[in-house]
Amino acid sequence: MKKVAILGATGFTGEKLVELLLSHPEVEITYLSSRTAKPVAYASLFPRFTHRLDVLCSPLDISAAAKKADIFFLSLPHTVSMRYVPELLRKNKKVIDLSADYRFPSAAVYKKYFNTAHLDKKNLSRAVYGICELNRNQITGADLIANPGCYATSVSLALYPLVKNNAIMPGVWVDAKSSVTGAGRKALIEYHYANIEGNIWAYKPFTHQHVPEIEQTLAHAGMKLKIKFIPHIVGIEGGIYSTIHVEFNSKATEKKVLSWYRQAYRQAHFIRVDAGLPALKNVIGTNFCDVGFALSPNGKEAVVASCIDNLVKGAAGAAVQNMNIQMGWDETAGLR
Amino acid sequence: MKKVAILGATGFTGEKLVELLLSHPEVEITYLSSRTAKPVAYASLFPRFTHRLDVLCSPLDISAAAKKADIFFLSLPHTVSMRYVPELLRKNKKVIDLSADYRFPSAAVYKKYFNTAHLDKKNLSRAVYGICELNRNQITGADLIANPGCYATSVSLALYPLVKNNAIMPGVWVDAKSSVTGAGRKALIEYHYANIEGNIWAYKPFTHQHVPEIEQTLAHAGMKLKIKFIPHIVGIEGGIYSTIHVEFNSKATEKKVLSWYRQAYRQAHFIRVDAGLPALKNVIGTNFCDVGFALSPNGKEAVVASCIDNLVKGAAGAAVQNMNIQMGWDETAGLR
Amino acid sequence: MKKVAILGATGFTGEKLVELLLSHPEVEITYLSSRTAKPVAYASLFPRFTHRLDVLCSPLDISAAAKKADIFFLSLPHTVSMRYVPELLRKNKKVIDLSADYRFPSAAVYKKYFNTAHLDKKNLSRAVYGICELNRNQITGADLIANPGCYATSVSLALYPLVKNNAIMPGVWVDAKSSVTGAGRKALIEYHYANIEGNIWAYKPFTHQHVPEIEQTLAHAGMKLKIKFIPHIVGIEGGIYSTIHVEFNSKATEKKVLSWYRQAYRQAHFIRVDAGLPALKNVIGTNFCDVGFALSPNGKEAVVASCIDNLVKGAAGAAVQNMNIQMGWDETAGLR
Amino acid sequence: MKKVAILGATGFTGEKLVELLLSHPEVEITYLSSRTAKPVAYASLFPRFTHRLDVLCSPLDISAAAKKADIFFLSLPHTVSMRYVPELLRKNKKVIDLSADYRFPSAAVYKKYFNTAHLDKKNLSRAVYGICELNRNQITGADLIANPGCYATSVSLALYPLVKNNAIMPGVWVDAKSSVTGAGRKALIEYHYANIEGNIWAYKPFTHQHVPEIEQTLAHAGMKLKIKFIPHIVGIEGGIYSTIHVEFNSKATEKKVLSWYRQAYRQAHFIRVDAGLPALKNVIGTNFCDVGFALSPNGKEAVVASCIDNLVKGAAGAAVQNMNIQMGWDETAGLR
Repeated sequence: MKKVAILGATGFTGEKLVELLLSHPEVEITYLSSRTAKPVAYASLFPRFTHRLDVLCSPLDISAAAKKADIFFLSLPHTVSMRYVPELLRKNKKVIDLSADYRFPSAAVYKKYFNTAHLDKKNLSRAVYGICELNRNQITGADLIANPGCYATSVSLALYPLVKNNAIMPGVWVDAKSSVTGAGRKALIEYHYANIEGNIWAYKPFTHQHVPEIEQTLAHAGMKLKIKFIPHIVGIEGGIYSTIHVEFNSKATEKKVLSWYRQAYRQAHFIRVDAGLPALKNVIGTNFCDVGFALSPNGKEAVVASCIDNLVKGAAGAAVQNMNIQMGWDETAGLR
Repeated sequence: MKKVAILGATGFTGEKLVELLLSHPEVEITYLSSRTAKPVAYASLFPRFTHRLDVLCSPLDISAAAKKADIFFLSLPHTVSMRYVPELLRKNKKVIDLSADYRFPSAAVYKKYFNTAHLDKKNLSRAVYGICELNRNQITGADLIANPGCYATSVSLALYPLVKNNAIMPGVWVDAKSSVTGAGRKALIEYHYANIEGNIWAYKPFTHQHVPEIEQTLAHAGMKLKIKFIPHIVGIEGGIYSTIHVEFNSKATEKKVLSWYRQAYRQAHFIRVDAGLPALKNVIGTNFCDVGFALSPNGKEAVVASCIDNLVKGAAGAAVQNMNIQMGWDETAGLR
Repeated sequence: MKKVAILGATGFTGEKLVELLLSHPEVEITYLSSRTAKPVAYASLFPRFTHRLDVLCSPLDISAAAKKADIFFLSLPHTVSMRYVPELLRKNKKVIDLSADYRFPSAAVYKKYFNTAHLDKKNLSRAVYGICELNRNQITGADLIANPGCYATSVSLALYPLVKNNAIMPGVWVDAKSSVTGAGRKALIEYHYANIEGNIWAYKPFTHQHVPEIEQTLAHAGMKLKIKFIPHIVGIEGGIYSTIHVEFNSKATEKKVLSWYRQAYRQAHFIRVDAGLPALKNVIGTNFCDVGFALSPNGKEAVVASCIDNLVKGAAGAAVQNMNIQMGWDETAGLR
Repeated sequence: MKKVAILGATGFTGEKLVELLLSHPEVEITYLSSRTAKPVAYASLFPRFTHRLDVLCSPLDISAAAKKADIFFLSLPHTVSMRYVPELLRKNKKVIDLSADYRFPSAAVYKKYFNTAHLDKKNLSRAVYGICELNRNQITGADLIANPGCYATSVSLALYPLVKNNAIMPGVWVDAKSSVTGAGRKALIEYHYANIEGNIWAYKPFTHQHVPEIEQTLAHAGMKLKIKFIPHIVGIEGGIYSTIHVEFNSKATEKKVLSWYRQAYRQAHFIRVDAGLPALKNVIGTNFCDVGFALSPNGKEAVVASCIDNLVKGAAGAAVQNMNIQMGWDETAGLR
């Protein structure tokens, strides 16, 4: 049994990591940290883990943590992870960072979107972008994995087969709908039940920080796209539904498009593809990404829809899948 | 047109008051206050009032307010209202206080439940407890009305006909379910959408501050009850559903019980009574209180259920109804 | 007081019409019909109308109905309205049809989208398409008004100012999110709470029957658009949020775009425009349509978002507004 | 690997059984039936099982089924199970019946509550009532297990320690709140999203069919209680929250009451007890039953609250736990 630590264990993502790792056959949770004032039983903070987990949640002490675990999940805010990663790598730990800190090889892109200088430039090149189905080889054995953003996962996986087949025009509209849990567990009036229930609104039009992730991933796959991304908050408990509008280079058929997807994902257990448009609820609580599509009557355009549980395939589940690949374990361990 | 002010206009109750008073035929909103740093357009805080209301929301200045309005709704936190009521009464304003500050003739009861000394004992006796259907006569022409608590309204109205007919045993269990909006618009992790959605929990068992209100109201009606009150927060957007368990003094029949209710409320437009158990959604967005009941097979006990919209009949709607009675207007004005 | 009838009074739209007309100052509800087996009190079907409405709901008898009312709202399924409209017009009734039966001057378009021959071609030319803010003049005094579809209203109002100013390219992507109430009150497993709660799915891609309505309305306004429409069902209780992706003919500025909207809607009480993206909840329960927009960084594209309550501005509210214009009453009567 | 069949695999409970059994280490699903017209891939009915389960769902053929499986879960409607159980027992199958058909040793009680004669009286005495924590010994090795009702589980587990210690008066009020999924997957207007969302109503007061189950279970534990049971439907997605009002025989203390619960459940992994009142969401998606309580200030009464996921601990999870005990496996297998 490998020992795992979760730094930042009380956010939505940290909590989901605890849940998933608890039933993982190869690991044992040995260290949990949060901004708590002093160590407390994790199950006292989250009673749903009573009778299931008997570990303290402590203020983060990176040296103490390093003594207790082999694999580190960093579920810390952006700009915080990079303060701890160098020491963990120095001590030969395996690191899976769920923040955006190591997603971009370029410190300039990071600065543009996060408005702060990168503090650990030297490890940027060491990081592997952990979009499992597309980067499996680089992930295997990597020391530092940058777990992708939730929107980025849902959109990159949906577009990859089209990009790989060089099938679409570069301008792509994405209309994404997300549960508010994607924004983190914050005590804001905006996230009060009475404001979220039954509400929908669009935000950060064109400028969301996941856009460069998507464009970078798809550039590696062969096309320089221009993603016009409009995220929305929707009053649902979990999940992301991304509706993507593409124009084909040349007239397409349902059969051909389906073959591109099936071919691209024939070995991807967690991606389920079919013609037609998926429903979000089928993936909630799972690590699956369901992708479907429909062609316009004239075959020149299509809508592609992709859905994931934003806290599983969009965060903690992908992180576990990354660990599985990294360590050479069954890719689905702990995720079935 | 009378001029009305709402002090504390940005809470759930204050916002609902604005909505109701906007369509009231006899009044015009002329003053709104909140804990804002400087005056701002109310509609900029609540865009849903754009094109509907063109009034500023200002930091509370009681003298300025007194110059602008005749009728004052105080939708302020408990212990705050009593700082402003004396001046308003001195200036001959009509006051409807939605806090608990004037609900108890006894300063000792207030101190017990709100843990602070009362600052305006002299006006306590001047206040009329504004449970419209039971205190209509005293409300007419009153200067200071203490608008009842939401749970108290739902329970007192449900029990009153039984008490008036001296029909039940003193021990009464109340199991009340409320939307979280009853707790006020607060930026707490506990009220985050992700915690409320799909959740139910009981709180403040036996000790909720609405218990003495209910007992006091029903004592006036003729019985000293012992209310065992268990409130719950339920993941719904609005409303209170109170399920009340009573034991009859002697065997009852559905017909007899129904006659007690019909008799007690034959002139109460906003109370709808029927045998059988009501559904909450029928009262949402309205000032109605729906009451129903079912007898145990042996006729010795009954469950009585009562439902209201906690922000309307349980707060702002009752306040408007109180104003209507107070001013001698049609009791249903602005509430249809 | 004019007498009004609602044919099809038990669907979501019929029920909302009852609610709105009940508080309308110029009318009185005198006739309600549904597929009930025999006449029953409407309030017994919908207890929320107890103490508010004392009218029977009867099996539809068009001759009896014609004797009882002057103005007819037809909230009947598509293909059913056209069976009754001819007789009502012959008897000089004012008719507001909420089905799609009279929305298209062309019987061929109707046949294409509703898969049935039109039975009342001769009255097609007499019908006025009732999109209030755009067709006010024709609506005034009209005998037969075809109330627009909910999606069509939200999209046409959002695009009209851009079309009128000939500002955009013809290809327009629309990503619309709707409450399931738009699909009618049907006993389907698909609409069971457990399937809708927390779910999102896209349906009828490119082929929804509201597309020709939108294209026809905007053609009248000056541009032949190609609307690529992707509707979604979202697990919320009410409302439509339409997110629209447009490309400008030439670079635009926020100021210029805002001026187009303000100019187009300077007399439209129920359309609220602002730069930035609106939130759905601000319009729920109202007849408002909130429209906002955001430009891409290069000013060549924009996202426009529009939201309405699908049962009010998207159906019953618009129908009342149409009646108000038709009859020469205050356009906002019964809708404040 | 034992082979398991689920008869009635498309209801909420059957679907949950599939989910749980899929990750159970000792079994393999080999047969699924429903009221389908012909065999279809189960994953085509429930796309969320795509890539996870490759079994057909067939019209029920009990002989064919008997050839394919060793252990049978009957998730059939009441009055249907008893048609198939005799043959399964004759063929030496292990049977876990989730209907009410074998919950009562007395055919008379069955007839009273289900209004039909029992067809398999001879096997009634062979059935073991499968409330795991209380009947573990009888369940071990049993052939036929009657899985308890959801409300019955939540209430019996909450009251058992008090009954065992003979601590309370016989009259007990129970106010239970349940998700609508407890009523089965039915295409009723009543279960339409628009009716459930935000709604609460009480139903079947005093007469719910789970009452005799509770009374029977607690009679075995030592007290003949009179349960006054008021169930409610609440607009939440899953779970039951039972709030129970008890009167002690003699004054109690929190410490003493807590010791009764801890003692009774010291070996019950799936029951979590604490002073204070639990929150429903902590058990959703799990097989736990959380129980808490609060004493009245005078120590003479208490409110006990218990919560479960109605489809897990209240149905499918308990059925799996029963199988585990029956077969001598780790009681928590497949349930962590």
